[in-house]
Amino acid sequence: MATPIESRTSLPEAFFEELRAILGDRMSTAEAIRQQHGEGESFHPNAAPDVVVFPRTTGEIAAVVRACAAYGAPIVPFGAGTSLEGHVQALEGGVSIAMGELDGLVELHAEDMDCRVQAGMTRKALEEHLKGTGLFFPVDPGADASIGGMAATGASGTTTVRYGTMRENVLGLTVVLPDGRVVRTGGRARKSSAGYDLTGLMLGSEGTLGVITEVALRLHGIPEAVAAAVCSFETLEAAVDSVILTIQSGVPVARAELLDDVQMDAVNRFAGLDYPVRPTVFFEFHGTDAAVQEQSQAVAEIASDLGAPDFQWATRAEDRSRLWKARHEAYYASLALRPGSRGWATDVCVPIGRLAECIVSTREDIDAEGLIAPIVSHAGDGNFHVLFIIDPDDADEMERAARVNGRMLERAIELGGTCTGEHGVGYGKKKYLEAEHGDALHAMRAVKAALDPQGIMNPGKVV
Amino acid sequence: MATPIESRTSLPEAFFEELRAILGDRMSTAEAIRQQHGEGESFHPNAAPDVVVFPRTTGEIAAVVRACAAYGAPIVPFGAGTSLEGHVQALEGGVSIAMGELDGLVELHAEDMDCRVQAGMTRKALEEHLKGTGLFFPVDPGADASIGGMAATGASGTTTVRYGTMRENVLGLTVVLPDGRVVRTGGRARKSSAGYDLTGLMLGSEGTLGVITEVALRLHGIPEAVAAAVCSFETLEAAVDSVILTIQSGVPVARAELLDDVQMDAVNRFAGLDYPVRPTVFFEFHGTDAAVQEQSQAVAEIASDLGAPDFQWATRAEDRSRLWKARHEAYYASLALRPGSRGWATDVCVPIGRLAECIVSTREDIDAEGLIAPIVSHAGDGNFHVLFIIDPDDADEMERAARVNGRMLERAIELGGTCTGEHGVGYGKKKYLEAEHGDALHAMRAVKAALDPQGIMNPGKVV
Repeated sequence: MATPIESRTSLPEAFFEELRAILGDRMSTAEAIRQQHGEGESFHPNAAPDVVVFPRTTGEIAAVVRACAAYGAPIVPFGAGTSLEGHVQALEGGVSIAMGELDGLVELHAEDMDCRVQAGMTRKALEEHLKGTGLFFPVDPGADASIGGMAATGASGTTTVRYGTMRENVLGLTVVLPDGRVVRTGGRARKSSAGYDLTGLMLGSEGTLGVITEVALRLHGIPEAVAAAVCSFETLEAAVDSVILTIQSGVPVARAELLDDVQMDAVNRFAGLDYPVRPTVFFEFHGTDAAVQEQSQAVAEIASDLGAPDFQWATRAEDRSRLWKARHEAYYASLALRPGSRGWATDVCVPIGRLAECIVSTREDIDAEGLIAPIVSHAGDGNFHVLFIIDPDDADEMERAARVNGRMLERAIELGGTCTGEHGVGYGKKKYLEAEHGDALHAMRAVKAALDPQGIMNPGKVV
Repeated sequence: MATPIESRTSLPEAFFEELRAILGDRMSTAEAIRQQHGEGESFHPNAAPDVVVFPRTTGEIAAVVRACAAYGAPIVPFGAGTSLEGHVQALEGGVSIAMGELDGLVELHAEDMDCRVQAGMTRKALEEHLKGTGLFFPVDPGADASIGGMAATGASGTTTVRYGTMRENVLGLTVVLPDGRVVRTGGRARKSSAGYDLTGLMLGSEGTLGVITEVALRLHGIPEAVAAAVCSFETLEAAVDSVILTIQSGVPVARAELLDDVQMDAVNRFAGLDYPVRPTVFFEFHGTDAAVQEQSQAVAEIASDLGAPDFQWATRAEDRSRLWKARHEAYYASLALRPGSRGWATDVCVPIGRLAECIVSTREDIDAEGLIAPIVSHAGDGNFHVLFIIDPDDADEMERAARVNGRMLERAIELGGTCTGEHGVGYGKKKYLEAEHGDALHAMRAVKAALDPQGIMNPGKVV
């Protein structure tokens, strides 16, 4: 997979000396380290940076960025390396900024239900910090991503249907701009009309407009009661419909995750479980005891009307955690279907009323091309994922997967949806932005040129 | 109040002929029409445009904008004229684009719970269009503003605590950019990671980056049950605390509006009501019958713990509508406290834990300066309004109000909040953006310069 590891820039030794003056030995040009920072979790070929730096403060990052600006060196922020569309590949070499050592809790205001963390803190580390506060951070993309990476990609995930994406849960950011200036966007107020929404502009900009170094987050109270249920359906349509009807009847479901039969089979094999190998929805309900009971009763009735043969409760915490572990392992379970393979995870999002047709057409397309590709859907949002289990060295297979992917993205855009609901653009989906945005893409490019006139921030990505 | 009405630009007759070719007689240079489009609902002096145009389509607006770009004519979009910080004042003359004739429903997708409207449609007109669908649009700033104006100012209001601001409820926009290109931002999907969030950038940009001509909105199911209650408190602190505790205990209250004693007195006089003249909170609860009962019971207990002497229910629709009518008339009720006066409405938003101290300090400050100024708070968001009832010709009074306002804005920023939670910047709050944003303001200016290099879009506002 690896491209030959050589410098794609011709950065002078003086530049590296400048970095050394800022960071001492917290930088590396070792081949293994560079390779490790040259890819995320997808099939996109490795593209290693010239150097990886390990800063500990916003100030150090600002100094690194100023040095890069002076020498025209490309900058690629690197969080936990869980991105899926080649976001962290150093396509033009340069400096990969490994954010892992910026992992501190800066502030926690339990009474205001907000906190501020350094961008390298991972989602699970934040969970640990919040233990005992009665609060939680709901955005859950599955992977143990860094909070900064989740902000940079506008991540969402399983609980978005209830709690929103990063867009609804980030109050503000600290960002090092491409010229090295440090700005704070947003404050701790729940809303503001004071000027342009730079926070929103940075969310989902994937490191192309600046380096996010701190993230202020909105927290939520842990619900008094939580219940979960698993329900399998005869058809994919019925499974999707159960979620659509749940949303349309106003049940504030906390999670509604659909796994198709291929995915259920993979999950069973991987975790030694025995769920029916049918399209299945995992539901979760949050609220008071009475509210949870009322919500789950409403959904059980919807499922029963759709002819679902069973509705299994998981009220005990250990049953729920087994269930969500199975869901979270879906990616790795799928890879295990074909040892030695790589995963090509792609996603689209459509208006929820078009979700069934979009998923069903995509499933037919996958099967017609003879590919192995489970489907998982955050169905409550109209968002779903296809995971092609592929051998990247098999050109024919790659071409078939690319065809299915291309048709799915075009279908989603035609249906009024988007070519990526939550994975982002990286360089894998750049060519679909024109179809989706038309002239609006020119406006995005104007913004990029205004904030990063040298084009040093994560070059080759997004716009 | 009116400034002498004369042209501040020197636009040639050829420009007006070009407008006439686009619009026929749907344009006016009559003094009364120009004056009418030279101000919003606040005390800021009138600044009339040179001409007011009344387009009916996005295409006509694009043609007008191209003509303006060719002649360097300033452009000021004008919705319902309910803005409060001088947003619509034509400070440099030019063309006011009256959006009122773009008032159509473009699409309604009840099954997906979304719709698309032309920007000039007002909030109440939308309410009419949605009758019988079982759906409603929750953002309620009080005034019968246009949806486009609400998008342009990032409006919010009484239900934000439960349903969010325009930011959470706008799916996408059609925007005429300053060079006349028409772009669509966002689609109908509930979320997207496909490129920069131009929708978010336009929301709250107050016409300085383009003219919003269509707005795609997220709709919500009308709750099965609605209940409301009014509760008065001995002190302002106790009233604020009742809301803070409600939020912190996770009760998903739909509205929590605090009116101070001065405001309650005004409301009583204006509408012939007899509420106690004490700090009062109006609560509203949405959900199923059981959920509403559970929520309101929880809040009644919180209020009782805070020593509230009464908790009046309004379960009948007519009682609720009387209650919310009283709340919505607060602005006009306040003006009636002093006939012939003008209102200077200002707002800030702080982290909710700091709301009590911020409101109490502001109340003391108002009283110390001997001003009449009721306070109303969307307390669940940490947002509150002061309405100075003033005589703009009384320089001393204006100065005292400006002092109170300045201290309040600085206090809010110091407490981690914002100088405006929902009114926006216009030109009234421009000078506070530096204190709030620091260097981030330069990034905003770079974005402005990139998208509007001629500086013709609503000049003199925001950045």
